[in-house]
Amino acid sequence: MKETKRVKRDSDIRVDARIKVSGKARFIEDVEFANMLHGATIRSPIPHGRIASIVNLEKIRNMPGVRAVVTANDIPGENIVPFVKQDYPCLAPDEVKFHGQAVALVAAETVEEARSAARSAEFEYEEYPAVFDAVQAMKPDAVHVGGEDNVHSYFRIRKGDVDKGFREADVIVEGVFNNKHQVHCYLENQGVVAVPESGGGISVYGSMQCPFYVQNALVKVTGIRYSGIKVVQTVTGGGFGGKEDVPSILASHAALLALRTQRPVRIIYDREEDFISMSKRHPARTRVKYGATKEGKITACEAEYIVNGGAFCTLSPIVAWRGVVHISGPYDIPNVKADSYAMATNTVPCGAFRGFGQTQANFANECLMDELAEKLDMDPVELRKRNILKTGSRTSTGQVIGESCGLEETLIKAAEKINFKQHFGRDKGIRKKGMGISTTFYGVGLGAEGEYFAKAGAQVYVKEDGSVIVAIGNVEMGQGSNTVFNRICADTLGCPYESVEVLQPDTTRVPDSGPTVASRSTMVGGRAVLDAARQVCDTFRKVAADKLGVKPFDIEVDAVDSRYRCSRGEMSYFEVVNEAYRRREKVAAQGWYRVEGCTFDQETGQGNPYSVYTYSANACEVEVDTETGQVTVTKFAAAHDIGKAIHMISAEGQIQGGTVQAIGYALHENLVLENGRILNPSLTGYTVPTSLDACDVIPIIVEHPHGEGPFGAKGLGEPPMIGSAAAILNAIYDATGIRFRHTPCLPEDIVKELSKLSI
Amino acid sequence: MKETKRVKRDSDIRVDARIKVSGKARFIEDVEFANMLHGATIRSPIPHGRIASIVNLEKIRNMPGVRAVVTANDIPGENIVPFVKQDYPCLAPDEVKFHGQAVALVAAETVEEARSAARSAEFEYEEYPAVFDAVQAMKPDAVHVGGEDNVHSYFRIRKGDVDKGFREADVIVEGVFNNKHQVHCYLENQGVVAVPESGGGISVYGSMQCPFYVQNALVKVTGIRYSGIKVVQTVTGGGFGGKEDVPSILASHAALLALRTQRPVRIIYDREEDFISMSKRHPARTRVKYGATKEGKITACEAEYIVNGGAFCTLSPIVAWRGVVHISGPYDIPNVKADSYAMATNTVPCGAFRGFGQTQANFANECLMDELAEKLDMDPVELRKRNILKTGSRTSTGQVIGESCGLEETLIKAAEKINFKQHFGRDKGIRKKGMGISTTFYGVGLGAEGEYFAKAGAQVYVKEDGSVIVAIGNVEMGQGSNTVFNRICADTLGCPYESVEVLQPDTTRVPDSGPTVASRSTMVGGRAVLDAARQVCDTFRKVAADKLGVKPFDIEVDAVDSRYRCSRGEMSYFEVVNEAYRRREKVAAQGWYRVEGCTFDQETGQGNPYSVYTYSANACEVEVDTETGQVTVTKFAAAHDIGKAIHMISAEGQIQGGTVQAIGYALHENLVLENGRILNPSLTGYTVPTSLDACDVIPIIVEHPHGEGPFGAKGLGEPPMIGSAAAILNAIYDATGIRFRHTPCLPEDIVKELSKLSI
Repeated sequence: MKETKRVKRDSDIRVDARIKVSGKARFIEDVEFANMLHGATIRSPIPHGRIASIVNLEKIRNMPGVRAVVTANDIPGENIVPFVKQDYPCLAPDEVKFHGQAVALVAAETVEEARSAARSAEFEYEEYPAVFDAVQAMKPDAVHVGGEDNVHSYFRIRKGDVDKGFREADVIVEGVFNNKHQVHCYLENQGVVAVPESGGGISVYGSMQCPFYVQNALVKVTGIRYSGIKVVQTVTGGGFGGKEDVPSILASHAALLALRTQRPVRIIYDREEDFISMSKRHPARTRVKYGATKEGKITACEAEYIVNGGAFCTLSPIVAWRGVVHISGPYDIPNVKADSYAMATNTVPCGAFRGFGQTQANFANECLMDELAEKLDMDPVELRKRNILKTGSRTSTGQVIGESCGLEETLIKAAEKINFKQHFGRDKGIRKKGMGISTTFYGVGLGAEGEYFAKAGAQVYVKEDGSVIVAIGNVEMGQGSNTVFNRICADTLGCPYESVEVLQPDTTRVPDSGPTVASRSTMVGGRAVLDAARQVCDTFRKVAADKLGVKPFDIEVDAVDSRYRCSRGEMSYFEVVNEAYRRREKVAAQGWYRVEGCTFDQETGQGNPYSVYTYSANACEVEVDTETGQVTVTKFAAAHDIGKAIHMISAEGQIQGGTVQAIGYALHENLVLENGRILNPSLTGYTVPTSLDACDVIPIIVEHPHGEGPFGAKGLGEPPMIGSAAAILNAIYDATGIRFRHTPCLPEDIVKELSKLSI
Repeated sequence: MKETKRVKRDSDIRVDARIKVSGKARFIEDVEFANMLHGATIRSPIPHGRIASIVNLEKIRNMPGVRAVVTANDIPGENIVPFVKQDYPCLAPDEVKFHGQAVALVAAETVEEARSAARSAEFEYEEYPAVFDAVQAMKPDAVHVGGEDNVHSYFRIRKGDVDKGFREADVIVEGVFNNKHQVHCYLENQGVVAVPESGGGISVYGSMQCPFYVQNALVKVTGIRYSGIKVVQTVTGGGFGGKEDVPSILASHAALLALRTQRPVRIIYDREEDFISMSKRHPARTRVKYGATKEGKITACEAEYIVNGGAFCTLSPIVAWRGVVHISGPYDIPNVKADSYAMATNTVPCGAFRGFGQTQANFANECLMDELAEKLDMDPVELRKRNILKTGSRTSTGQVIGESCGLEETLIKAAEKINFKQHFGRDKGIRKKGMGISTTFYGVGLGAEGEYFAKAGAQVYVKEDGSVIVAIGNVEMGQGSNTVFNRICADTLGCPYESVEVLQPDTTRVPDSGPTVASRSTMVGGRAVLDAARQVCDTFRKVAADKLGVKPFDIEVDAVDSRYRCSRGEMSYFEVVNEAYRRREKVAAQGWYRVEGCTFDQETGQGNPYSVYTYSANACEVEVDTETGQVTVTKFAAAHDIGKAIHMISAEGQIQGGTVQAIGYALHENLVLENGRILNPSLTGYTVPTSLDACDVIPIIVEHPHGEGPFGAKGLGEPPMIGSAAAILNAIYDATGIRFRHTPCLPEDIVKELSKLSI
């Protein structure tokens, strides 16, 4: 069969651009139902203890506008919001494990009435001792919070013989690195509306990444069967992982109130509530040790990775797993020993955040690589070149890198782009420049530990006028997936991009597409769209061939001009659609894709944890104001091998956005907790980069196509957030001569260390 | 492969029973949107003329609560509601053709404000001469209303040589029969809500039979492309054909107001508006002539069938076509000549109504058969037996009846059931009894003239807990189709009936399933459900076989006990689902079905107009009160060969409901028009049978399965409405000796004729 002709066409506008810039997009705040109530949450005032009662519950029930108060006793199903484990109660039954944990719910006629009622709750409680730090939680005498001995989960990698590896090393470096929480700070806070349906079911609309996770939670909490649950994602103002797991909590809460009142109930958090109760990036303490020969060949890596999972397990196991799988870096190292622990503490549960456990791990290993290069007196680019993964290399899990590895190309291109050259703290004057580099590899998708969800369904439906509806369970949350699905569908069917519309995901509409996480939408969801579009295209080829008097495989689909061609003649896409309708052909199809062949041995950590990897390198220049400690990122080149850019502008935007988010992680974002209580739950107290803090990130797209992805595409969402912080901290060292081993690296830290130097 | 074991199981409750009897079903009146406006219609005060202007338009715009007034000038797309032809304006541009035609629209904050504003319209107009009767409209000097010479459409049948046939006849009978309008009188009036969507599209929710027709109309009127239009059927309180075409008008109106105001707009008609403006069963004048040998073999049939289509064409061509195809009756007659005309007049446009042109035609031929039997001095059952269609017979279109013809069985069983025996007007006393009989055949589905729509798409989606969602474009409107789809799906998958939920149809969800008309849902929609369920079942068989260590075709699906069995062991349906999910199998599928092979030669009327026929016979006893003219149907046996009853109670209910509707048609329902204006637009002025008028109709299900239908099922919706009126009028003759050749046959007609006799 002749291949579809696909060439980048004029229109490069994202499919969601117009609706968003014109203000017409309907976020959850814009979704109103007739007769709708508003929900608010009564939360624990203590980080650990037993809530004996809400003393004034009856009074709250009778407050103005209040229509229902729901506690753990009122849950029709199980009091569990299911994540990896089944430990997170929907509403605290009596014991609370973190400050801000949901205890009860209020529904009232207005938002103000609901919140006012929730705020007025008075508690009778007994406070327990608490533990807030992951390392403290490991101690034998630590207060028990959760899991076995406070361990939510443990994973390890054992490859080769690290002792032997270190014996063979001429040089050994070791460091302990610390990262604090990071808050997602999506533009749109968490919000859902639950609507009771006449048949006894419930529909939930909301800002979310994983409608099918929410569906699972609703089944559990409400006791309603799957066919009675409908979850629809509304236009979502950012997720970054922060809308992976926790929307299930809000959705369950809203559903409980809606079932109780038999009226639609909307819950939208304000920023403070969102900060206090929603998931975060795990704080981490990471110890890494590298040994290398004097020629710069790494002989061994040992690592211990401890993340603070907070009070409940949520996604911590998978975060810790992804971290440990990648913790030795994108290098071919014969001997690796790594252990990772997700610990339970009395802090807000941590969950998914772009990078998903790799950000902290990569920060540690890539900063340490810089130290290793220095100790070897070797250029850090050169050191990496001697160790990086190439086709035929083996990762720390023993996986052989097969097709599609553009890591070296990303490294060379990123370094070249900013004329990478170290300054060695030699700059004179107050403002000192420095350069830093980092590399990353990233296992695309859910991998062996998330295999159950490693699937996607999609539906393509061509309407009578050639306009096309695409339904898929993966969500657009700003990352550009709808534009990618649009392109994959249009380029396959040979229709104009403008003809294809991607619907808001709806769990009743398409088979479970898995979650919208792990940079998997393009590669996995995209394959499902491709599968569906190909089936319809096959029908169109048959129709065109029959009309033109040739065989289907003689038909060439020209997606550029939207034509079906063969030697005997041609038809426009629209003529083909028309003819297919005349013949009453089925011009709709369901697509399906599942990722196969991932393995992971729990004992040794050996196997093929992911089927596809992406690769990236970041090179940056910073300027450090040695008086104020202010760090300005002045140049940043981010090169990513993503297989194939389905939509160039979106891909470049992902790189720029992820990098700026990493600048915030590296330099600005400082969540302060005291006794498990967040002291700065606001965007004034917790500062994210603004456009003034963002440098002109130069995205470099490297395309080593992978056979598994649609048109060769791999994943991109998370890698820009993973490697950048290390590059920045390495550049700060290069500018100042000071090694910082933590994030955020704040101006006060820099001033403090510089002042020590000058003493 | 072993066949699925299917046996009638305990539960015989309709799937929509609980929600309807408990009052929880949400009809369009229960569908509220936040910020919703209400629409009302300004209508023509004259039956024919030019509306120069609405004089007080500006004043109406400024009336309390009014938010928009829309006229023909404000239509963004084309001013056409598309039916078979493109003659029906959405809003009268200037010329109006019937009293009550929509001229302009008002949207206001409340229903009362909207209606009050609409009522206050004052017109400047010029009235034209008008024609109200179909036969008058045929005259050369008739006022021109529409079509060519007022003919909306014309069809003919030419088989054999009727002149020769009549020459061969020993006996000839001929009669002219008249039927007045019939009003659908669905429990729920017409209603829709249109909701403007943020992307510029529009969603319409409403009481309707044909969401895809509404979609087509919205595309036309709004100029929005198909992918931007979503039409969702809400729980529908009866249709009977009355919600086939005309909901497109309401939907277009509501959409215009919604697009104008950018707010949801609901339009629900009150009963008067519904009577005045919505479609009706066509009044008809039918002339039939039969010739037969003295042995009772019919040698020729000639017929002329004239229906009054009203001001616009809508579905009249198809009504006239179905009428003429069936007009010679379910008999094997060598020579047939028939002509049918749908005429344009200045009355409300007539459209679809259960029976769809066959009701009037069958009334004529079956009454005349009674006259023929009398003239031959032959029992009417015997006369029919000598002529009825059997396997191998040829219809009037020359079609050979293939498999599945249970007509003779229905005839025998119906007659037996009431011990059919004529009274010949011999009863003494005031109350006289009589018996009548009739037979019918019915081409299931859309046939050759509706081939474009003769298709159906469906989707079956098994969820994680084994609950199942079925999506299809055919609607439940009380006829029981959702129960039928439920049964077909559950019996195919081998799951409990309780596990399957059929969703409200949504045009964005499934491929065009065609309209819910022509008794096609079970046979055509059912096949699509069957196709989808079979695909999923094949996956389940594979999973079960693999687990049990056998081949898929060794697996026997036991739908009775919900088990997948083989010699090596068995799994419950739920275990199979669980295993399929574990393996990440695609457990959803799209089904598709199209009817093939229908033909009709426009010149000769020869061909295979339908692929499948159902057959029925009605036998009844009436008691005529000769003082009051009151006719009471005392016995009614209705035998229908429907191939296979998928859900017995629903099938029997269809027979009983249709028969009672036919009793109304025969005896009660009298729409009175004066100069094109309906004088009794209410349920007090126009009386339908109540439970007190309904006799105990005995349904007799005859099952001659047809290979094309699911599990052998054919169609049933319309036949009970087709043959019954003739049986009743034949019984009245038998009781009184008076031949009435019209419907409704009112008490006053009977008293009047009886009084002539007694003079």
